[in-house]
Amino acid sequence: MTGLRYSTDGPDMALLTAVFTPFTETGEVALDTVPKQADALLGWGSAAAYIGGTAGEGASLSTAERMALAERWCEVADGRLDVIVHVGHASLTEARRLAAHAESVGARAISSVAPYFHRPDTVAALVDACAAIADAAPTLPFTYYHIPSMTGVDLRASDVLVVAREKIPTFAGVKFAHNDMADLQRCLHLAGTEHEVFVGVAKLVLAAWQWGARAAIGSVYNFAGPLFRRLLDHAARGELEQARAAQQLAHQVIDAASRYGGELAGFKALGALTGVDCGGCRTPLVSPGPEQLAVLRAEVTELGFLGEGR
Amino acid sequence: MTGLRYSTDGPDMALLTAVFTPFTETGEVALDTVPKQADALLGWGSAAAYIGGTAGEGASLSTAERMALAERWCEVADGRLDVIVHVGHASLTEARRLAAHAESVGARAISSVAPYFHRPDTVAALVDACAAIADAAPTLPFTYYHIPSMTGVDLRASDVLVVAREKIPTFAGVKFAHNDMADLQRCLHLAGTEHEVFVGVAKLVLAAWQWGARAAIGSVYNFAGPLFRRLLDHAARGELEQARAAQQLAHQVIDAASRYGGELAGFKALGALTGVDCGGCRTPLVSPGPEQLAVLRAEVTELGFLGEGR
Amino acid sequence: MTGLRYSTDGPDMALLTAVFTPFTETGEVALDTVPKQADALLGWGSAAAYIGGTAGEGASLSTAERMALAERWCEVADGRLDVIVHVGHASLTEARRLAAHAESVGARAISSVAPYFHRPDTVAALVDACAAIADAAPTLPFTYYHIPSMTGVDLRASDVLVVAREKIPTFAGVKFAHNDMADLQRCLHLAGTEHEVFVGVAKLVLAAWQWGARAAIGSVYNFAGPLFRRLLDHAARGELEQARAAQQLAHQVIDAASRYGGELAGFKALGALTGVDCGGCRTPLVSPGPEQLAVLRAEVTELGFLGEGR
Amino acid sequence: MTGLRYSTDGPDMALLTAVFTPFTETGEVALDTVPKQADALLGWGSAAAYIGGTAGEGASLSTAERMALAERWCEVADGRLDVIVHVGHASLTEARRLAAHAESVGARAISSVAPYFHRPDTVAALVDACAAIADAAPTLPFTYYHIPSMTGVDLRASDVLVVAREKIPTFAGVKFAHNDMADLQRCLHLAGTEHEVFVGVAKLVLAAWQWGARAAIGSVYNFAGPLFRRLLDHAARGELEQARAAQQLAHQVIDAASRYGGELAGFKALGALTGVDCGGCRTPLVSPGPEQLAVLRAEVTELGFLGEGR
Repeated sequence: MTGLRYSTDGPDMALLTAVFTPFTETGEVALDTVPKQADALLGWGSAAAYIGGTAGEGASLSTAERMALAERWCEVADGRLDVIVHVGHASLTEARRLAAHAESVGARAISSVAPYFHRPDTVAALVDACAAIADAAPTLPFTYYHIPSMTGVDLRASDVLVVAREKIPTFAGVKFAHNDMADLQRCLHLAGTEHEVFVGVAKLVLAAWQWGARAAIGSVYNFAGPLFRRLLDHAARGELEQARAAQQLAHQVIDAASRYGGELAGFKALGALTGVDCGGCRTPLVSPGPEQLAVLRAEVTELGFLGEGR
Repeated sequence: MTGLRYSTDGPDMALLTAVFTPFTETGEVALDTVPKQADALLGWGSAAAYIGGTAGEGASLSTAERMALAERWCEVADGRLDVIVHVGHASLTEARRLAAHAESVGARAISSVAPYFHRPDTVAALVDACAAIADAAPTLPFTYYHIPSMTGVDLRASDVLVVAREKIPTFAGVKFAHNDMADLQRCLHLAGTEHEVFVGVAKLVLAAWQWGARAAIGSVYNFAGPLFRRLLDHAARGELEQARAAQQLAHQVIDAASRYGGELAGFKALGALTGVDCGGCRTPLVSPGPEQLAVLRAEVTELGFLGEGR
Repeated sequence: MTGLRYSTDGPDMALLTAVFTPFTETGEVALDTVPKQADALLGWGSAAAYIGGTAGEGASLSTAERMALAERWCEVADGRLDVIVHVGHASLTEARRLAAHAESVGARAISSVAPYFHRPDTVAALVDACAAIADAAPTLPFTYYHIPSMTGVDLRASDVLVVAREKIPTFAGVKFAHNDMADLQRCLHLAGTEHEVFVGVAKLVLAAWQWGARAAIGSVYNFAGPLFRRLLDHAARGELEQARAAQQLAHQVIDAASRYGGELAGFKALGALTGVDCGGCRTPLVSPGPEQLAVLRAEVTELGFLGEGR
Repeated sequence: MTGLRYSTDGPDMALLTAVFTPFTETGEVALDTVPKQADALLGWGSAAAYIGGTAGEGASLSTAERMALAERWCEVADGRLDVIVHVGHASLTEARRLAAHAESVGARAISSVAPYFHRPDTVAALVDACAAIADAAPTLPFTYYHIPSMTGVDLRASDVLVVAREKIPTFAGVKFAHNDMADLQRCLHLAGTEHEVFVGVAKLVLAAWQWGARAAIGSVYNFAGPLFRRLLDHAARGELEQARAAQQLAHQVIDAASRYGGELAGFKALGALTGVDCGGCRTPLVSPGPEQLAVLRAEVTELGFLGEGR
């Protein structure tokens, strides 16, 4: 069985965390931080760790670093937490190596973006690329990670889903990180009960939940997991006004983070403020300086995000 | 001395070939083809081989494959031909490994695109990334490869040049693969006699030559080196009308190739028709099928490109 | 009082129709068709006619034609139906003329896109432009029509809303025709009970309704008003599954229409199939030919859209 | 005879000025300034005035204002200067009125951009739109004005040229305001001696001249006509180094202007500094404030543009 379904019939939505990669001050991968990250996720009930994706700066790591990170996460999780390894790479050869390695170290599943230097022009070519990767880890579910803003590949995810489930035996679903709500709806409609659609835009979580989505993957859960759990509890109890207020607060926190060195660097700073310090970002990303950090901290405090209400 | 100047005071323009990576029918790198490629370049006077770039599908290769390819080219060239190794990668860690390796196997120089998954937002961040790469091969000239259509990094190359030459001791110049003629002119103006500006758009070769450019790097020289040599001979003799006719023919051949499976796949097909067969492209690129190839062959024959006049 | 609120406390959503402009076979505005259009809207309970917008090809009409059309609609509506006149124009001088005229003939409100040849770079400049227009019809509510795909002006609508309500005495709200669900949510959050947010993307109607939106303006209501009424009735009764099925059918019909000559031309063809024939589109839009029409008809029939279930 | 050729066999390039529209302090069209503008053009030998285009903010004027402006220019020019009237409009109905009016008041030619709200999707639809306009002024040459950055219509101008000259009896050529040097080269190649290609990007003047272009239309000639005349004199005498230096200075002046309120507002400010004061820009464009003007003046003075060397 190769599925990767977190959705249930109930109103609950599974929140999977696209974890940051921790770095030391000299820019090495800080594997020692992984246990703290795992504990934090277990603490608030994150369903899984998604590693080496956009938030994990996977593309900025070497293949060896990515393998070491995957291995460490699988050891640390030790069955307590699902580990999904993002293996996407501009080179399918490297992606396949990463996929086979993930399988060998006990990952729960793999996932991949589209190739992002030479890019597929058609759905068929994109699915061929995904199939090549999935085939290197034949026992693991494969989830296509749709994120046109990073890859430049803007083929409709719903079209990919339809072809991929025919062509890829281990195809498990789509991580949908794009603003196109209509395409997300099509994916949810098509996915049925066999495939999963992971909401990948934190600002759309409530809207997607209302549309039937029951699983999400995101980097905001590194620092705002409890806020989103609260949001979803309200939603499950039919308290839509409170749910919307929580979503609105999330919007404001995200917008604040984006103003300081770009979204990811700001998110990582918020992660340090609220829990586990994973250090800065790797070049070419730029981490906020001390003044920017102070302003960010003040802004989200004023929003009530860092106060006791959190 | 770390420069990489091909320009002279004369009217001649150096043509460096961004060589294809040869693949076997099963998609492995066909290292045995490299000597044939090198001979072809020596045959018509190409000044250097630029390997593992866009045309070389470097991003689609594994790091190991890229190293093997660099090593083979250096062996084969054996001082008869400059070998410039493109070491650009989404991961600076991998890029640095490739840079150090290129230095160790005797490459003449290295070159790199901007990081293309997580992307630098500012000239400063881009130059930092370049500096990190250059620093891993401290005896080799470093050329920044500007190609916004592939990397999504559209910072003005002339601005990069100004900062990079201050910050990077081995900075040698810019390979300019973009349509922005005004920015190319600024680069040529700023480069002076110390740095090199390599024209990276084949359709702009004559215009750039008229503007003072004296070096170009491109993939068209895999199949159209003699045509461009002829173009430049006309230009050097002041026969502008014939030079323009040659450039116009090049436009038409390039446009024809682009209609069949995308520019690179079409170029590779023309390479096979005119000289060395380097096989198809790697996924996610798609190679033209037999019917498409036949039409392409017919089209360029009718243009007079494959006839005796070639 | 200058508000333009259709939202109530209840679950009902007001549907305002962005009506087509009817053309004769020789391309003249067919004012005689207006009464039929108005009757059709009254028939299924459309809350208002929004005229001369994108669907109305207002930008393709002369100022005189736009005035004649506005006048005719106001006469025909005769208090039975609100008439909102889109007065947006590349020239604010013309837009102001249209605004003053709309007021003089008894329109209920005016609305405008951003100037779309010379475009505002900042929210302040955009609001200045809107203010100049609103000022020409000082007794009519003014609604900003946000449609970046047509105007090229992609400033956040929520930012515009915040400034516009301070600067424009008659500011009534935003018609939001963009895929950015998060910005739509911000607008709904900010609008409160004083301003209106009109959903302008038919594919997002249900999602926006779930988020609290209670008014929409669109061209699909020219042919799919009853389908959306049914969708909203299901939603109001808490029958979300049926509501989603209706939204899904709407997606499919919209996608089918888009495949034949572009969305608007396809919509106009569906309008003719389901009710009032408004003729083809003006150049530079191209209307579908007979074969395309037959295929479109067959497709939407197969979807169950034209059958008795409609 | 309907041609509009300024090219000759010689090296000289005709410079046509895309004149600003003068505004009073209260934003009315200042027709009294037109004679001063005309005298300035005659003073340095501009071949024609192109009115109501992008620089002329034609799209921001009402139809009545455009007609009054065209009429005034024709009166003032009085045969001493060609007047080419830009009649492009989002509405072909208005464009046709403008075209017929231009013919009636004695314009030398008309010209038009593509419709820019509803936009043509194909070359055929674009040429249909142009034909409708040209047909309204059947005795005047018609020039297609290619400017994708403003219209959003990015069909290759060379493809338009090939179809337009078959379909439009009065087709005279293309005003090419786009950075795509290769497409400009194709246009020059295709135009032959019957049609004209006007270079519409000031930064490409020398490169295009080297490629055979012998006519240009631009707004920089409002303030930098003498500089470009000098540039071309150097070119004609084979003094390429000096010609390039002049082009480089033009680049720097243009870049400086762009930093203060956008290119057009900055250009208009330079126009006032160097000759005729045409006032500020119409909303939604924003004119530079006094401090910005002072900095701009200082910058271009330092560049040597405003000194005696001008």
